[in-house]
Parts: sequence; C-alpha cells; structure tokens
Amino acid sequence: MNATASDWRRYFVAIRSNKIFEMVVIAIIVFSALAIGASTYEMEPRWYALLKIFDVAVTLFFLLEILIRMVAEKRLRDFFRQGWNVFDFIIVTASLIPMDESEMVLLARLLRIFRVLRLVSIIPELRILMNALVLAIPRMGYVVLLMFIIFYIYGAVGSFLYENINPVLWRDISISMLTLFRVATFEDWTDVMYETMAVHPWSWIYYLSFIFLTAFVFLNMMIGVVLDVMQTEHEKYNREQGTGEAGEVHWIKHHTEEIEQRLIRMEAMMQTLLTQNDGKSTPKDE
Amino acid sequence: MNATASDWRRYFVAIRSNKIFEMVVIAIIVFSALAIGASTYEMEPRWYALLKIFDVAVTLFFLLEILIRMVAEKRLRDFFRQGWNVFDFIIVTASLIPMDESEMVLLARLLRIFRVLRLVSIIPELRILMNALVLAIPRMGYVVLLMFIIFYIYGAVGSFLYENINPVLWRDISISMLTLFRVATFEDWTDVMYETMAVHPWSWIYYLSFIFLTAFVFLNMMIGVVLDVMQTEHEKYNREQGTGEAGEVHWIKHHTEEIEQRLIRMEAMMQTLLTQNDGKSTPKDE
Amino acid sequence: MNATASDWRRYFVAIRSNKIFEMVVIAIIVFSALAIGASTYEMEPRWYALLKIFDVAVTLFFLLEILIRMVAEKRLRDFFRQGWNVFDFIIVTASLIPMDESEMVLLARLLRIFRVLRLVSIIPELRILMNALVLAIPRMGYVVLLMFIIFYIYGAVGSFLYENINPVLWRDISISMLTLFRVATFEDWTDVMYETMAVHPWSWIYYLSFIFLTAFVFLNMMIGVVLDVMQTEHEKYNREQGTGEAGEVHWIKHHTEEIEQRLIRMEAMMQTLLTQNDGKSTPKDE
Amino acid sequence: MNATASDWRRYFVAIRSNKIFEMVVIAIIVFSALAIGASTYEMEPRWYALLKIFDVAVTLFFLLEILIRMVAEKRLRDFFRQGWNVFDFIIVTASLIPMDESEMVLLARLLRIFRVLRLVSIIPELRILMNALVLAIPRMGYVVLLMFIIFYIYGAVGSFLYENINPVLWRDISISMLTLFRVATFEDWTDVMYETMAVHPWSWIYYLSFIFLTAFVFLNMMIGVVLDVMQTEHEKYNREQGTGEAGEVHWIKHHTEEIEQRLIRMEAMMQTLLTQNDGKSTPKDE
Repeated sequence: MNATASDWRRYFVAIRSNKIFEMVVIAIIVFSALAIGASTYEMEPRWYALLKIFDVAVTLFFLLEILIRMVAEKRLRDFFRQGWNVFDFIIVTASLIPMDESEMVLLARLLRIFRVLRLVSIIPELRILMNALVLAIPRMGYVVLLMFIIFYIYGAVGSFLYENINPVLWRDISISMLTLFRVATFEDWTDVMYETMAVHPWSWIYYLSFIFLTAFVFLNMMIGVVLDVMQTEHEKYNREQGTGEAGEVHWIKHHTEEIEQRLIRMEAMMQTLLTQNDGKSTPKDE
Repeated sequence: MNATASDWRRYFVAIRSNKIFEMVVIAIIVFSALAIGASTYEMEPRWYALLKIFDVAVTLFFLLEILIRMVAEKRLRDFFRQGWNVFDFIIVTASLIPMDESEMVLLARLLRIFRVLRLVSIIPELRILMNALVLAIPRMGYVVLLMFIIFYIYGAVGSFLYENINPVLWRDISISMLTLFRVATFEDWTDVMYETMAVHPWSWIYYLSFIFLTAFVFLNMMIGVVLDVMQTEHEKYNREQGTGEAGEVHWIKHHTEEIEQRLIRMEAMMQTLLTQNDGKSTPKDE
Repeated sequence: MNATASDWRRYFVAIRSNKIFEMVVIAIIVFSALAIGASTYEMEPRWYALLKIFDVAVTLFFLLEILIRMVAEKRLRDFFRQGWNVFDFIIVTASLIPMDESEMVLLARLLRIFRVLRLVSIIPELRILMNALVLAIPRMGYVVLLMFIIFYIYGAVGSFLYENINPVLWRDISISMLTLFRVATFEDWTDVMYETMAVHPWSWIYYLSFIFLTAFVFLNMMIGVVLDVMQTEHEKYNREQGTGEAGEVHWIKHHTEEIEQRLIRMEAMMQTLLTQNDGKSTPKDE
Repeated sequence: MNATASDWRRYFVAIRSNKIFEMVVIAIIVFSALAIGASTYEMEPRWYALLKIFDVAVTLFFLLEILIRMVAEKRLRDFFRQGWNVFDFIIVTASLIPMDESEMVLLARLLRIFRVLRLVSIIPELRILMNALVLAIPRMGYVVLLMFIIFYIYGAVGSFLYENINPVLWRDISISMLTLFRVATFEDWTDVMYETMAVHPWSWIYYLSFIFLTAFVFLNMMIGVVLDVMQTEHEKYNREQGTGEAGEVHWIKHHTEEIEQRLIRMEAMMQTLLTQNDGKSTPKDE
C-alpha cells in the first residue's frame, strides 16, 4: 500500500515538473485574469452565465493543481515551508468559500482578482524580481520612519495653523498628512499654498521647507537603495563566479609577501654559496 | 557583360561611401522634414503646389538613393540582412503607393513624417544610441510585466468598487487602468481620490498603496537599467581595450601561484647545493 | 559627601544605559506624539482635560530624564558638548515656560510637536541617518547658490516683463521667484505660460529655457550627491575592513618592484657562480 | 616711461590678487543684485532716485575694476583669451550704453540683471561648477537631437490628426510640440487626452507611447550623463593622484611576466650548477 502511495507521488512529481503542465497552468491563470477583466464590461446575461461556469472550472482546476503539488511533496510540512506555496494555498482555498449574498459578491470578486498574482508565483523570473523587491524593504525601513516623522510634525503644525482657513484640507492630523502627501506629489500644491498665504503671508516657508525636506530625504533613500542593490548584486556575482577581484588582490598581496621573504632567504643562501666558492677557488688559484 | 555590372557596382559603392553624397541625403531628409512641418501651417495654394512638387522630387531622390545602395551590394540578400536597410526600404516604397482619396491623404501624410526617422538610420551616432535603447528593452521586459499585473489588479478592483461613483473614470478595466496611469503621473490624482473618498472614506489606502507600489517598482526598474548599462559599457570597454582589470588580476593571481611553486623548487635546489658544498668544503678543511 | 555624589552618578549612569529605561523613553515620546495628534481632532472637554494632565506628566518625565542624563555626566560641560544633548535640553526647557495666554497657546503647542524629533535623537539608526543627511549639505551649498542665482535672474526678468500682465504672479521679485518655483515643479505651469504668451508670443522661450536650466542643474546636483555618498561609503568601508583594494594594489606594485630588483641581483650572483664553477670544472676535465 | 608702466602694472596685479579687493567686488555685485531686486517693488520716488545714483556708482566701479584687470595683463590679447574675461567685458560695456527712451529702459534693466552672473565668474567654486555643466553638454547633444526627432514626428502627427478638434493646442507643428512638452511634464495632460479621445477613442495610444518614449530616452540620457561624469571624475582623480588602480594592475601584470621569465632562466642555471656539482662531487667520493 505504501509502495502504491509512493508510485502515485512519483507520478505527481512528474506532472508537476512537466513543462506542458506549467504552460497550461499559466494559460489558465491568464484566461482567468481576462475573464475577471471581461466581467467589468457590460455584458449580455448569456455571456455572464458562461463566465460563471468558466470560473467554477478554473476554481476546480486550481484545487486539483494544488492537490497534485501537495501530494508530490514527501511530507505536507515541506509544502507549507515555502512562502509561495502558502500564498497559493490561501488564494485557492479562499475562492472555495461559497459567497452568494449581495455584500459578499464583491469580496468574492476581489478574491478572484488576486489569482492573477499566481502568475508571479509560477513564473521564476517574476519570483526572482519579487524577492529582490522584498529584500530592499528593510533597507528602507528607517528612512520611511524618518519621512513619517517629518510628515507627522508638518501635519500637526498644519492642522494647528490652517484648520480655520480650510477644514476640508487641515481638519485633523490625518487629513493634514494626506494634504501634505498631495503637496509632496506637486498635485495642485500652489492652490493649497495660495489659500493659506492669503491669511498667513509667510506660510510659503512652511511649504517650501517641507518640499525641500521630503525631496532631500527621498533622494537619499533612492541613493541608499541604489548603493545597496549595487553592492548586493556585485557580491552575489563574485560569490557565483568564485572569484571576486578584491579577494584575489588580497590573496596576491599575502603571497607576494611570502615570496619576498623566501627570496630574502634565498639571496642570503646564495651569498653564503658565493663566499664559500670564493674561499674554495681563491686557495686553488694560489 | 558581368564585368560591366561589377564596374557599375564599384561606381555605386563609391557614391554610397562619398561623404558629400551622405551630406546631401541628410540635407534632403531635413528639408523634407521641414516641408512636412510647414504643411501644418495655413498656406496660400501657390505654396501648397510647390510643396507637392518638392515632395515628388524627394520621393524620387529617395528611390534613387535606395536603388544605388541596393546595386552597390554584391547580393540583394546582403542588403536586406541589415535591419536599418529594411527600415529604409519600407519607408521609401510605402511612399510610392499612390494615395489620392480624401481618407488616404491622411495616411500618405503620416508615411511622409516617418521619413524623418531616416535621420536615425543615416547618422551613425544616432544609430548607436538607438541600438543601445533597443538593447535595454529585454532587461525591462519582466519589470513591465510585473507593472502590468499591478495595474491590472488595481484596475479590476477600482472598476468593481468605484464604477457607480464615476463611470467616466471607472467604467471598465481598461478605462480604470488609464485612470490609474493618470494617478501614477500625479495628474489631478487628488480629484479622483476625493471623489471616491466621499463614498468610501478609506479609499485613500487604495491610492497611496498603488502610488507606493508603482514608484517602488519603477525605481527598481531604473536601477536595474542603470546597472545593466553600466556593466555592459564596462565589459565592452574592457574587451575593446584588451585589458580588463578583473581579468588581469586573475592572470596575476594564477602566475603568482606558479612563481611561488618555482621558488619553492629553487630553494630546495639551493639547499642541496649548500649541503653539497658544505660537505665538500668541510673535508677540505680537515 | 563627594563619594556619595559619585555613587549617585554611578546609579544614574546605570539608569541611562538601561535598555528598559530607553524603551520607556521611546514609548513616552510616541505616546506624547499621539497625544499631540489626538488634540487636532474634535474632542469632548473631558478628554481634553485628560490630555492636559498627560502633557504635564510627560513634561515632568522629560525633565527628570534629562536631569538624570546631566548628573550621569562627570562634568556638565561634557553633556553640552554633544549636539543632540543640546537639542534635547532646548526642547525640554522650552516646554517648561508657562504659556497660558491665547496667542501663546499656539506657540506652546508647536513646541510640544518638536518633542517628536527626540525620537531621532534617541534611536541610534535615525541619528546615523540624520548625520548622513547633514554631511551631504556642504556638498550641495554651491549648487544651491547657483540655482538661487538662476531663480533670481529669471525672477527679476519675469517681474520686469510680466508685472502688468498678472501682478498676482509677477508683482515683485520674491513673488516672481515663488511663481518660478511653481513652474519648476510643473504645477499648472502652462496656465502661467499661456497667460503671458497672449501678450508676448515668444515668452515660451523664457519658460522652456528656465525648465531646462533648473532640471539640468538639479540633475547634476543629484549626480554630485550620489558620487559623494558613494565615495564616502566606499572609503569608510575600506577603512573599517583594514583592506582597501586600491591600497593593496599599490602595496603589491611597490613590492613587485623590490622583488624584481632582488632577482636581478640574484641572477647576477648566479652568473658569477656559474662562471667560477665552469672555470673550476673545465681545468679538471683537462 | 616703460618702467613706470610696468610699475603700474605690478601695482594693478597686486590689487587684482588682493583678497579684500575680491571681497569688495563680490559685495558690490551682491548689493547691485539686491538693488535690481528692490527696483521690482513699489517705491517712493526718493528711493528710486537713490537707486539710480547707486546704479551709476556700480557701473563706474565695474568699469574701474575691469580696467585694472586689463592693465594688469601684460598684453591686452591675454585678457580676452579667457572666456570669463570676455563675458565680464561684454556685461560691463553693455551697461555703459546710455539708454533713456521708454522702450530701451527695459533692455537697460535686463542688462543690469546679468551683472549677477558676474558672481559666477568671480567665485572659483561656481566657475568650476559652471565648467562642469558646460562639459556635460556635448555628451547630451545627440540625445537631445533624438528627443527633438521624437517631438517633431509626434508634433506633425498631432497637428494632422487633432487640428480640427482643438486648434489652440494643435494649430501647427510648433504649437503641437509645445503641447507635447506640456504632456511630457504631466501638466494637465489628461485634459488634452480626454478631449481628443472624445473624437478618436484610440488616441490614448498616441499619448501613452509618447510618454513612454520620452521617459525612456530621458532616463537613458540621465544614465549617460551619470556614467560620463563618473568616468571623468574617476580618471581625473587617478591622474591627480598619480596612481590609478587599473594602471597599476597592468604594470604589475607586465612585471610579473618578466619576473617569471627571469625565474625560468635562473632555475635552468641552478639545474646546470647542480649537475656540475653532482658531477664534481660524485667522482670525488669514488
């Protein structure tokens, strides 16, 4: 019985590794995405019914595919150890929950959209790209915190000073921060500024200092990320190639040092040889 | 007879390589471009007739020029093997098709504009620049795909949630994606946001997360291209110069290793010499 | 008595270095910031009174904390020698000044906001980030001066030419420079341009040349900062690692030179040995 | 008499090189700039008269300063050989031309503004920065040409297709290119697009392809400049330091090669020595 299970597993592993099977999965994801896109257009009820049937078929296919991948794993734990598998599992199981009430229809639709993200988990190049993006996040953490502090302080100041001028933009600190984000994207920021300058003529200092600070911090964040990515890429390349110029130069330095020591010893020995030979040959000539 | 054809070819090759001929071609392309630009202004009918005659002359000259270049080639196949020649051939032949009906006039005009692109194919520096741009495209492929997925998901979500608020902006997924592109360029994006925030107060999360995601992916795309171009430039430079620091360092490492081995052997030999000499000289002193 | 004071100091140093104490300070800063944020919302009087009590408590805690840090220092001078301590001292003492009149309430509130900045002085990572930002400022000095000169000249020209067209935008040089900053951020700049183009049709040259100049100078500023930061990072890394590839290569070059000189000497010595030996062995064979 | 002239020259050279004199010139340029700025504000006639007197004084001072610098030069030709001197000379002499008619007043004012640019010619750091900016221009030449071709083609197409929809934006090719520049800066570009999409629903392709093309080319231009500046900076640094890692590595490679050749020769010699010695010592033992 155990042998049979192992046979089945080998069969499922073969399916999973099959290139054609992978292509079929990608094609079905793309079609599923197109169906979701199509459902945003006005349609005849006939087509709508067709889409619904297609959706059920896709859901069942995804369920089948994830079951194959689960069985193909030696232990179920191994399946859930990989982040992308957990991601796929959640997306597939979530779309199995029957939701038919009016309110839930929206949620069900949204869940179906996230199936498109399975493209990222199934195409290796996109997965690599996604991992690189995720790796860049911690590097940005403290810069985002610094940026948030700047927004918070300017938001509080803006709310205190300008609340009475335009409550729509400066009612409280959260609304003020949203207005400041708008200013940071240069979106009609002069309208915001001219309004407050009519009451506080010096308020342009508030806006210009804010723009300079955020642009300055953002610029540095960008540079930080560029440097980080460059260094990481570079080191990775060196490790892969087994070389690494800097490492080789260090190796050469160390060995040049040894060679020099050896040569000093050899020169001394040769000096001895010469003196001995000289001593030997001189008496001979006598 | 064959000899005569070969004579003709040699003659045409001479014309093609002639610097003055090249200058004349460039000048005619520029004048042709100016004529197209001029035809967008209001003009007296007299000038319009003149432009038409000039256009016929330019078309004939381009035909002549491409025939010379085709004959100058040993085999016609060689001519079409180069992408830029195919490009020139299509532009020249397309403008030969007679189009006089009202609808076709527009198309004929558009075809004439693309003649300006011949500047790119004839000026070597622009051709190099263009090739560099084309080479950067594959590197961007998967990032553009990732960006498209982000746009598609947000477009579908936007269409589901906001269709009833403003059908002009969120009618279906394609219109929603166009609206999102507008948001990504910061073009009056707060107007779009405030409209939906009136119904869904938390919809600012939708916009801010979208802006952060696209900016983040775009930033990484930019860095990717920068790195790619830098690496390519650098390697090309090394290959051209025949040097390449990293390669030289590797060479040095390898040879330092050999030198050290050789020195170890030599030191051993010298040790032998010293012992022999010592053995020889010691008995002598006895 | 002196011994007791030293005991107290040791006790305070222990408190200051305590990780939990640091966490408490950070927590209180965050809560204080949240309280300031909360006070921008509409509230029941009951909550407002609570916030006031909390504010007094925070002020007292900060006073206590800074006193502990001052006593923990051997000499008071050492405390004020560090920029961040001076920064903390000013923020804490300024909030001690009693301000109750209507006008002063605003100022008191603003002072409380700056307490959030204490987060920067207490979290080491943010302090490092802030120092890096401050270090980048001198590098930018002259570029900002150049940019200011461009703005000043265009501002004066704009004020002379367009004052009669729209005094709101071009009344005097300072208003003109603000309008130009708006143009530089692409904020409704075409509205400004079309207005003056109605009177001076060639004024688009003014705007386009200004946009190109500022973008060009800004681009170079950015590159300058990138290069500066990269170089600094790189050198720092080398100094920390005790290596530095370029330095090692220089070391190797110097020692290769010495090795070569030594080998030249050794080869000459060996030549002598060979000649002597040859002289010795030749007569023997005779 | 000639000696006296030379004495005078030496005296003027001393003035020119004097740090205090330089400071005075900078101060007067700044005050002159402030006066120009002040004249854009509404003023009492009394102040206006004062500004006029100050302007005459500044003009005379600048004349004096440039004469000192001209006399300080050995030959007048040497003075005009430096670009910045020619620049100063034109600015100073142009402001000497008496202009009092209403129309000319504007021109006279504009000329006075350009005096501020003398700050660039007198502060060495700004002069270096300006030279660096000027050096970056040729690198950008062909990219700007490529960008112009893109604008020209899209401008002509836009004028052909959209002229009847909105003549204000698409009347002729020059107006169309201005509109496209507006689109490239994302300034209310959706208003332009929605207008034409009402007639040609597919015209979003025109705008999106244009935005992608210009952004793509601009990105590459930026990267090109970054690379160019980096390479130039780097090579300059190497030349100044007399080192240059890549050059040193090349040097080391060459000398390692020579060392190896020498060692091969030495090992052969030592082998000979050993054989001879062996031959000598073997018979001895017999």
